[in-house]
Amino acid sequence: MDGAVLSMSEKLSVNPDRLLDSLQDLGKIGALQDGGVCRLALTDEDKAGRDWLVARMRELELDVSIDAIGNIFGVYAGTVQSPPVMIGSHIDTVRTGGLYDGAYGVLAGLEVIDSLRDAKLRLKRPIAVASFTNEEGSRFHPDMFGSLVYVGGLSLEHARQAEGIDGLKAGDELARIGYQGAAPVGEPNVAAYVELHIEQGPVLEKRDLQIGIVEEVQGISWTEFVVEGVSNHAGTTPMELRRDAGHAACMIATFVRELVLRTGGRQIGTVGSIRFEPNLVNVIPKTARLTVDLRNTDESVLASVEREVEVYAERICTENELTLSRKRLARFEPVKFDADVVEIIATSVEEYGFSSMRMPSGAGHDAQMLARVCPSAMIFVPSVGGLSHNVNELTYPEDLVNGANILLDVVMKLGNRE
Amino acid sequence: MDGAVLSMSEKLSVNPDRLLDSLQDLGKIGALQDGGVCRLALTDEDKAGRDWLVARMRELELDVSIDAIGNIFGVYAGTVQSPPVMIGSHIDTVRTGGLYDGAYGVLAGLEVIDSLRDAKLRLKRPIAVASFTNEEGSRFHPDMFGSLVYVGGLSLEHARQAEGIDGLKAGDELARIGYQGAAPVGEPNVAAYVELHIEQGPVLEKRDLQIGIVEEVQGISWTEFVVEGVSNHAGTTPMELRRDAGHAACMIATFVRELVLRTGGRQIGTVGSIRFEPNLVNVIPKTARLTVDLRNTDESVLASVEREVEVYAERICTENELTLSRKRLARFEPVKFDADVVEIIATSVEEYGFSSMRMPSGAGHDAQMLARVCPSAMIFVPSVGGLSHNVNELTYPEDLVNGANILLDVVMKLGNRE
Repeated sequence: MDGAVLSMSEKLSVNPDRLLDSLQDLGKIGALQDGGVCRLALTDEDKAGRDWLVARMRELELDVSIDAIGNIFGVYAGTVQSPPVMIGSHIDTVRTGGLYDGAYGVLAGLEVIDSLRDAKLRLKRPIAVASFTNEEGSRFHPDMFGSLVYVGGLSLEHARQAEGIDGLKAGDELARIGYQGAAPVGEPNVAAYVELHIEQGPVLEKRDLQIGIVEEVQGISWTEFVVEGVSNHAGTTPMELRRDAGHAACMIATFVRELVLRTGGRQIGTVGSIRFEPNLVNVIPKTARLTVDLRNTDESVLASVEREVEVYAERICTENELTLSRKRLARFEPVKFDADVVEIIATSVEEYGFSSMRMPSGAGHDAQMLARVCPSAMIFVPSVGGLSHNVNELTYPEDLVNGANILLDVVMKLGNRE
Repeated sequence: MDGAVLSMSEKLSVNPDRLLDSLQDLGKIGALQDGGVCRLALTDEDKAGRDWLVARMRELELDVSIDAIGNIFGVYAGTVQSPPVMIGSHIDTVRTGGLYDGAYGVLAGLEVIDSLRDAKLRLKRPIAVASFTNEEGSRFHPDMFGSLVYVGGLSLEHARQAEGIDGLKAGDELARIGYQGAAPVGEPNVAAYVELHIEQGPVLEKRDLQIGIVEEVQGISWTEFVVEGVSNHAGTTPMELRRDAGHAACMIATFVRELVLRTGGRQIGTVGSIRFEPNLVNVIPKTARLTVDLRNTDESVLASVEREVEVYAERICTENELTLSRKRLARFEPVKFDADVVEIIATSVEEYGFSSMRMPSGAGHDAQMLARVCPSAMIFVPSVGGLSHNVNELTYPEDLVNGANILLDVVMKLGNRE
């Protein structure tokens, strides 16, 4: 059946209950009192999640390996010795996370294997289910360091030295929980990588679509601007003698929004954080800090918008005799996924007759790291209310099953490709 | 010498060293380690300051009385039985205050009496030196409640029930420090009130002027606006699906500034405080709070600007599907001082040959309360750097002496007026 299209009646399907049950089971590990989950990377809860995952992999008779940065791989052998098709995501969460972000991609991966086993089917290529370390970055910076080390973008030693929000070192915590594995990082070599994930945004739900075919990841630019002025009495200082840092900060914030709307296309921008000092009703702010989050799938537009914001901020501060400083908090270029893998996903979606759209990912994912070393792409399913990193994160069971079926179908296509 | 103008050579002068020494002496009570003073109303430090003041009044053989809200009066008898001319201010301070705000008006008042005594001079009218309770309002709300109760604008019982930032009641604290006096509030009746005060703003210094002739007090409008939107992921939420409370808050803040500049005249406005929730770089703000401080000497313009801000805020929130609520934090109408008293001050300034300007007060003062019951006005001296409510508050000795000489001269004119 090399590359042949199966008619719908011939397609394998995942077992819906088994998939949904596994999400609930893993969700019990690190469960919070009022719903949601906390499995910060390399904590006892993460270890318990990992133990559960490895046990599941062994039940499926996968060849389990753990590499030096704690990435977990379970490989289902193919009929031909060759680099595997890899599917997966991560099982760590933010402090108040939900049941689906990350876990869904890993457990749908296991379900794909289980479904192949049910059908007593082996593909030409091995299929590897991956769970990468510290995707969220809520405990250790940088986020996604498991997949970043895996693709050679960060040294193992650098990642091990990462200091957690609790002051503990990632390397020490990895050893403590018993997940500093023997496998060298960067193994196994991968033929292709597909990551199934909840959207974490409202677009699919708002447009009433079942599947997102993710063809790229936005580039991200985070900058903190700090404006320094002079604090004075709000009642006794004439307007022309003021050096109001708060006013400049609000001007920059409104400019960001105007510029983003004027730029249009896929440009987005957010001022999520602002702080005045002393922040009193009757005192002119001495200092104002704001963060600017800019994202685009087009690097040249992103860089130009970034520069426009900087030029505007400098101009406003100069005109108002204020001092401006800025600090780059994060900067990632956009990532294009592999056109062939995207087409294979699109073909599966079409065969299933699911409504869909091609879209970028607004959030970062391990797939953007894997894209450096192998053909990669992602599949999104809708998030209710666009909520994520939230204990109320929810994707409806039907959507979870649809996504897993697409993943299974894509794996069968990629697994039998030369 | 009724109403007659004395030539400069005939004018009395205050004793500069005695005035400056007394400011330093009172400044030792509640002195902070790194300079400045903390004598919050009705604390042990305030009691010590009051004890020192009352002792000074007794040294000057004044008729000392303390009323039921703790206002202290020292009366220097005149030659005719009549309502006194009152001069004074307050000796409480903010938490990190300076040596001059308030204390200067009271101690210059004592120096005026001392100078009259040196000259063995009594005027027709008695001269009362007043020190009002809780002008600053840093411990108990509302500020200026001593003078407000004195003029009948607030009931004694209401003021006594005021709860301090430490949870203690003003009435209890007044009794505890022994300053719940026997005199009924509203006594003595006053013929005129003149308050000498540091400017607390930069205008006199910037214009290199010696005296401010204060003919009015700005009206004040403080409003807190709370914008409620929806918190969402900054990377995955398209611009058109956002309900960004932070953006609306910054729009309102920049509008306030534009409107104030467009209105011109004596309109001023400040957004001193802003808070986003959750205030994270990559999360669209769910809630944004900002305060708007508007001031003008013209009530109709102030009310119109106030309304324009409200209309704009409502429009921005409606257009962006945000919920707006607002809370009036404070509202005082402008106060016009008495034209005759202002002219008497202006005449004295002219006779001394001091450079001066007529100006409004940007801050609130006890004089605005007294203006409800008797002809009142104020005299300002320059503040270095416009600083006040600050341990670095400073007025140069020469300016302090100039102001006290004007006060003495004005007292002689008013004290001999029918």
